[in-house]
Amino acid sequence: MNTTDLLHFLERANRIAAITDLDPLLDETLGLLVDACGASAGLLYLPEGSATGVASRLLVTGSEAISVLLSNRPLAESLALPEAALLQREMIRVDDLPAGAAQYPGLAELAECGVTNTLAIPLLLADSPACVVQVFDIGEIELEMAQLLGNRLASDVEKALLLEASRLRSRRLETLIAIIGQIGSTLDRDQLLRLIINSAREFLGAEAASLFLLDETQGDLVLLLASNINENVAVERLRVPAGKGIIGHAVQSGKTVLVPDVAQDARHYSGVDHSSGFITRSILAVPLRARTVDLGGGRGATRERIIGGVEAINKIEGTFNDDDAHLLCILTNQAATVLEIASLYNDANELFMDVVKSLTAAIDAKDPYTEGHSERVSEFSAAIACELGLPGEAIHHIRIGGLLHDVGKIGVPDAILCKPGKLTDAEYDLMKQHPTIGAKIMGQVRTLHTELPAMAEHQERLDGTGYPRGLKDGEISTTSRIVAVADVFDAMTSDRPYRKAMSADETFDYLHERGDLFDRACVNALLRAYRKGAIRTQKERVAPGEDSS
Amino acid sequence: MNTTDLLHFLERANRIAAITDLDPLLDETLGLLVDACGASAGLLYLPEGSATGVASRLLVTGSEAISVLLSNRPLAESLALPEAALLQREMIRVDDLPAGAAQYPGLAELAECGVTNTLAIPLLLADSPACVVQVFDIGEIELEMAQLLGNRLASDVEKALLLEASRLRSRRLETLIAIIGQIGSTLDRDQLLRLIINSAREFLGAEAASLFLLDETQGDLVLLLASNINENVAVERLRVPAGKGIIGHAVQSGKTVLVPDVAQDARHYSGVDHSSGFITRSILAVPLRARTVDLGGGRGATRERIIGGVEAINKIEGTFNDDDAHLLCILTNQAATVLEIASLYNDANELFMDVVKSLTAAIDAKDPYTEGHSERVSEFSAAIACELGLPGEAIHHIRIGGLLHDVGKIGVPDAILCKPGKLTDAEYDLMKQHPTIGAKIMGQVRTLHTELPAMAEHQERLDGTGYPRGLKDGEISTTSRIVAVADVFDAMTSDRPYRKAMSADETFDYLHERGDLFDRACVNALLRAYRKGAIRTQKERVAPGEDSS
Repeated sequence: MNTTDLLHFLERANRIAAITDLDPLLDETLGLLVDACGASAGLLYLPEGSATGVASRLLVTGSEAISVLLSNRPLAESLALPEAALLQREMIRVDDLPAGAAQYPGLAELAECGVTNTLAIPLLLADSPACVVQVFDIGEIELEMAQLLGNRLASDVEKALLLEASRLRSRRLETLIAIIGQIGSTLDRDQLLRLIINSAREFLGAEAASLFLLDETQGDLVLLLASNINENVAVERLRVPAGKGIIGHAVQSGKTVLVPDVAQDARHYSGVDHSSGFITRSILAVPLRARTVDLGGGRGATRERIIGGVEAINKIEGTFNDDDAHLLCILTNQAATVLEIASLYNDANELFMDVVKSLTAAIDAKDPYTEGHSERVSEFSAAIACELGLPGEAIHHIRIGGLLHDVGKIGVPDAILCKPGKLTDAEYDLMKQHPTIGAKIMGQVRTLHTELPAMAEHQERLDGTGYPRGLKDGEISTTSRIVAVADVFDAMTSDRPYRKAMSADETFDYLHERGDLFDRACVNALLRAYRKGAIRTQKERVAPGEDSS
Repeated sequence: MNTTDLLHFLERANRIAAITDLDPLLDETLGLLVDACGASAGLLYLPEGSATGVASRLLVTGSEAISVLLSNRPLAESLALPEAALLQREMIRVDDLPAGAAQYPGLAELAECGVTNTLAIPLLLADSPACVVQVFDIGEIELEMAQLLGNRLASDVEKALLLEASRLRSRRLETLIAIIGQIGSTLDRDQLLRLIINSAREFLGAEAASLFLLDETQGDLVLLLASNINENVAVERLRVPAGKGIIGHAVQSGKTVLVPDVAQDARHYSGVDHSSGFITRSILAVPLRARTVDLGGGRGATRERIIGGVEAINKIEGTFNDDDAHLLCILTNQAATVLEIASLYNDANELFMDVVKSLTAAIDAKDPYTEGHSERVSEFSAAIACELGLPGEAIHHIRIGGLLHDVGKIGVPDAILCKPGKLTDAEYDLMKQHPTIGAKIMGQVRTLHTELPAMAEHQERLDGTGYPRGLKDGEISTTSRIVAVADVFDAMTSDRPYRKAMSADETFDYLHERGDLFDRACVNALLRAYRKGAIRTQKERVAPGEDSS
């Protein structure tokens, strides 16, 4: 190589050095060294970086025969020479292939492609080589010049590697933020659990993931959900005794447990493997730690606590590392907090429904003939709303409305409410005030405005003959039409002091005949729900099979 | 410079190139060029990178006099020569200072430090110079060699810059994740709002930030919170008409609005500036967009909606950029979703409290003499618990317990409940069943177990003379002791058919005397709450000022 050539290649190296993206930088570096050595082909071997987390890479350029050979055989078979150069931190030249290749097994096959010699050039940096370029069939070259060109680009390759790793990390963090956003927008426990397990598996590139929740009464862990790539592999429901297994250890200690090879770890609890045929190689286990949740409204705060654990199993590429552990912890801590909030929200709703059910049941119970009436009307109303295809939130309000429809009876004297015989006109007038009283009692509740018509209008009839206001057709709200049908259906299918219960079929016949009083769409919806078995009459509950319908 | 020296400096440049952190890399690069030029001092000027987001930097090394001069005067005065070299992409040499310095104003003062000549070397990369090194009092050197050494390190400086920017971004994302975690663990609306505004301001490095919420009935925006560095600057509460101002535009369009100079933007609504004396220069405004929240339990979902907007005002260093906008959007979307969930949670709690208040009020109202009794007992019980220093969550349960303590009266016939005269023994026996009935009605509610004793035991007395079980001292729960005192206090300070209401003082005297019946700590706590004005008797509510106490 003459000086002009050297300057030409150095100038080309300077241009290549300006490239900041790793892949084109590596391509151009390989091309430069193949050209500078007058070689027919070359490979660039980038070892896996423990610091950068970037996976190992092999680039091949030049002669097609060599490319085909290198690309089709296992990576390890091509690496004997470059790894030797990497270790020795020196160029290694092998002449007279195949004879000279005894030391490096992979080289013999290259001779069959017509390769006669080869040179491995480590790109040397202050600390360690960034990568190795190996060229085949080199011409007459000065080895020092090849080394000089390689070294010129070593620091750029190193920085491009760090840059790629850093950008990869930013992308992971952005993905994590997106997952946290998704998790944070559902209060549905089952959906939350599935979301956690699937995002943990995908995010970490693991073959499978499992989620355990702590059973606070027993102290052991319950396997709640396992996600596998092969959805056909069934994992049996499993309990892990407190502190047992790798997951038990993570939950009990509150610390991350990273096990690269479970076969070497006595803590591994192989129950799942045996029962599912799944083979666990590596595990990353973290506790599900819910943060302290500030409850607001002067109520103070819940306390930080561990509610279970998550395991990621078998990293598909490479091995689980500290950053995987760190990011999985962020994900699971956030998920645990959202689970806690979902459970607070669900408890608040459950408390409301249960207390109101108990109170309305107590009102119903004043008259033995109306026992359980409000809860059944609530169920029937919800079933109608469901059949009508109303949205879940509307069904929820109608369920509450049905439950509260008779709440005004609390303001009607017991003597009238429980009178066994026929009511006098004056008594009946008092009784007819219960919708108005109910609407008045609940009228002050800001968050109950959707349900009010169920109380105020459930005795109105489409032809205007109902009470208390004599509303007609379109004047009556959908909620009230639904509750009216549910109310009459329950009353007619229950015993009364003055008559026995009618069968469901007889009642539906009556309701169909009285299209002047009751909304046909609601009656049909109730019939569909009844035929599906979604609802049962009072009689069918008390003595199933006795009813004729 | 001879060949040995050149090789020495090239080898040193190669070692420097291996440095990956920006600051030491710049330091060493500057030192190398100062030494290679035999100069007495030098500076390195790194212009602000629009692509990297890294701020401009000036490093100085060498002669103390020059260091002092360069470090103490405004940056711009030192930059005439380096910026010219940056623009021309060529070295610029100025000899015979100060005479030769007419073109570059900043140089004249350097002559006073004894500087006679200077050389600016741009570190040239394929695209553009990465930075400029300027050296002072150079010796006899070959300029080409100085340029060669500088160029050797240009690509490394460029990559180190990108690496620093990428790492900075990762750190910002980690910070953002920490903020999201913090926001996600509070259901307290006020705390949430403060958290959002303070984290937005700190995260973006802004002088101030404001949060507006959409008033859905009026359609305009209400300024809810403004955070300034100077906490003394009061911002008056302000309403912004729909679509007006930069924030109104962001909320109405649902898009980010980035205004580098508000003086140039007709949309700016200067109402706040005028009223607060605060001068707004730049604004980054984003909508507060709450995600669809899945409610769970078959209830469906809320819909995605914009609930307000957040403005960051006056970036302290540099200007707001697209990444600031992107990250602020992530933060505000997450915050809006958490606000939505907090509001769902608070609504569920409010619904429960309001409905139970209405129902217990209806039970109380059966007897005009006990109207409002349950709600007052609830308040008095909470006040006692608060004075006893119980935690917020316990106070919450005691408040509910007090509200429900008499719920069993729903199972006592009206005739007994409302009887104006004295009850017969048989009637009184029925009346005395109300604690048992109450506990039975609510006994099935899973989430109400903490409150049950308030119903079952509020008529028990410390000496065992209470009913229904005749419990004594330590057998009676704290909740029941509290509610018992609250219950008796309200009964005695209200009129009854057979006597007039007693004053609060008389009642406290009685309660103190009967330490055999009532928990002294609870009586004292109630007295403290009463003296503070935290509670009022029924009489004091009806006719304030009439009561003698």
